[in-house]
Amino acid sequence: MFVLGIDPGLSRCGYGAVRQISGETEVVAAGLITTSPSLGLGERLATLLSDVRGLIEELCPEVIAIERILFRTNAKTAMSVGQASGVVHLAAFEFGCPVIEYSASEVKLAVAGYGSAEKIQVQRMIKVLAKLDHTPKPPDIADALGLAFCHLANYSYLALAQRNRST
Amino acid sequence: MFVLGIDPGLSRCGYGAVRQISGETEVVAAGLITTSPSLGLGERLATLLSDVRGLIEELCPEVIAIERILFRTNAKTAMSVGQASGVVHLAAFEFGCPVIEYSASEVKLAVAGYGSAEKIQVQRMIKVLAKLDHTPKPPDIADALGLAFCHLANYSYLALAQRNRST
Repeated sequence: MFVLGIDPGLSRCGYGAVRQISGETEVVAAGLITTSPSLGLGERLATLLSDVRGLIEELCPEVIAIERILFRTNAKTAMSVGQASGVVHLAAFEFGCPVIEYSASEVKLAVAGYGSAEKIQVQRMIKVLAKLDHTPKPPDIADALGLAFCHLANYSYLALAQRNRST
Repeated sequence: MFVLGIDPGLSRCGYGAVRQISGETEVVAAGLITTSPSLGLGERLATLLSDVRGLIEELCPEVIAIERILFRTNAKTAMSVGQASGVVHLAAFEFGCPVIEYSASEVKLAVAGYGSAEKIQVQRMIKVLAKLDHTPKPPDIADALGLAFCHLANYSYLALAQRNRST
């Protein structure tokens, strides 16, 4: 399984691609797509679309895991996150790549074993899972990797359940 | 001045194009772009993008007036409206068409003369301004026309102020 986690955002859009083979995980790529606030909104979205297309084309993930946004933050951030997530869905559709959404609680549960875990606990676990010497920064990258690991955990669980059913 | 008003939405995206020449307004086009909830989100956004592109290409508006979303509705609606508005900004950027955002209060003020006017009052005024026999339905079309009339009112006011300054 090869999953690309994306934490959508207009100013900073984190991504983290993780491959799992025979239970072993490997971080293949992780980084940040940024767009300048000095550009108009249309140009920022077009830049983001182009960069996400490039990422999918380069990495060819089997699936994209993206955060399911529950609007509790301020209205302006919520709006730009909504617009950025739409761009990711658009790019994924163009490449026929399925998208699965996970809430922040689902990521916390999968990564730190507790749906209400503190952000710092989750980031420490991501550091361990990604076999890194330090916590990925900015947090958008850690969040994207968290989404990828969350999907791998769910996928492994489902695969195991399916195997158990068929035996 | 030729303005295309767009009331962004994923299920129903209203549009209304209004031309103003020598103070006379004419509704050139008005309608609804819909996407089926049975499709995946990526496909719905791609359909919307394609339809909005088609609209801009066909009408060649000088400017697009779109609603500035203030998230007070429920989270799910807010998210899909954000995604749909992003698609409109993207399409407009591709055609080099400027986008101006107006809040619902600004539309009410411009159309009904009162920023807290009831929806029904605004719709009645739009019917009068658009010289229609009936209120445009569904309300998404009336809202889109309202955005177009709001921009024309602002544009006329600014043009008048500029003329007064230069005399």
